[in-house]
Amino acid sequence: MAEGKSFAATDRTLPTRARERARYDEETVHAILDEGYVCHLGFVRDGAPVVLPTLYGRVGNRLYVHGSTGSRPLRMAGGQSADPGLAVCLTVTHVDGLVLAKSAFHHSMNYRSVVVHGTAHQVTDQEEKKVALDALVDHVLPGRAADSRPANTKELAATAVLRLDLREVSAKIRTGGPNDDPEDLALPHWSGVLPVSPSYGAPIPADDLAPGIPAPDYFSAR
Amino acid sequence: MAEGKSFAATDRTLPTRARERARYDEETVHAILDEGYVCHLGFVRDGAPVVLPTLYGRVGNRLYVHGSTGSRPLRMAGGQSADPGLAVCLTVTHVDGLVLAKSAFHHSMNYRSVVVHGTAHQVTDQEEKKVALDALVDHVLPGRAADSRPANTKELAATAVLRLDLREVSAKIRTGGPNDDPEDLALPHWSGVLPVSPSYGAPIPADDLAPGIPAPDYFSAR
Repeated sequence: MAEGKSFAATDRTLPTRARERARYDEETVHAILDEGYVCHLGFVRDGAPVVLPTLYGRVGNRLYVHGSTGSRPLRMAGGQSADPGLAVCLTVTHVDGLVLAKSAFHHSMNYRSVVVHGTAHQVTDQEEKKVALDALVDHVLPGRAADSRPANTKELAATAVLRLDLREVSAKIRTGGPNDDPEDLALPHWSGVLPVSPSYGAPIPADDLAPGIPAPDYFSAR
Repeated sequence: MAEGKSFAATDRTLPTRARERARYDEETVHAILDEGYVCHLGFVRDGAPVVLPTLYGRVGNRLYVHGSTGSRPLRMAGGQSADPGLAVCLTVTHVDGLVLAKSAFHHSMNYRSVVVHGTAHQVTDQEEKKVALDALVDHVLPGRAADSRPANTKELAATAVLRLDLREVSAKIRTGGPNDDPEDLALPHWSGVLPVSPSYGAPIPADDLAPGIPAPDYFSAR
């Protein structure tokens, strides 16, 4: 299984509909995760769902999110390795295109998403915490962790990191044009896809950036 | 209150940190919602959180999401107006820039997000359902609902629509450059913002699009 390793489908990751869009292979899951900037982290608070956008990073089959030690999900996950952790659902979505059909009913999106179910635990090992924080910074921009001042003791103490293992995980992908009904094809409406992708503007130097420091060349990685 | 109407903050919408980023005015909330393509809809299933990306539309202070009548969150919300509904958290996030600081600790994102807490109910009124479906299509591309075949009776019956009122809602916005510590300013790392925004490729006609139908001019709205 060195090649084509896949996650096992579970009741939660087997879609009730559009099963042909589901993917479970690591390569697809990792690629979608690595391309995102923010995930949407869901947890249950007082019986009700909460969904917050947050940065994340990946190391192998471990995802990391971070926050202040005082933030709600971090506190809820507990601070000791023996704590039961926090049940979460972490979702990353890319919109790739607006799918315009002849009929309102068949309008759709082309997208790639990953949904991870599991229990998040606070990282208590200091070495793992440093690796996780590097991954978070490198996730924003690959190569950036080595080109910034690492967290000092005070910053490390003020930052809590949650780990979520990739075990119960699935990807969903929709590609291609609209699926119009044959009897609609003679209608006069344009149909097809309007592609969407992120684009990057010119780097804006910080107001307090000293003169003579050029924008780094690893910007081209994004 | 005709001008500058705002949502009242609650325990759930008052952030524990970075309170200066929170906004509660309708204008800001609506603008962020209207610019998004997909929301992340959170609900609780068997005690665990689930977060799924889905299309949405807005009519005034009502949000609508839709799906097959067989999909999980739709079924869980119940099919009768007297049903208790489904506790949800609906979140929309735009990433506007990668914020690169001298220190790893101060790396961040510029973003705009809206988080809505509430109870979603199935729309049982057929007229409201039609208005909601138009809003969903127009949300993908303004002007598109009028330029497509409306849902027929069979399609309406196969589609369930959930309504979520905007009541307990907040926006969060981060703008500007990194907030580096003064003692880091002499470090040789570049600091600033790499702006990110969605861009649109050339429209791709459907394989089964008859010749002679031009791409609509309302594409320019996106």
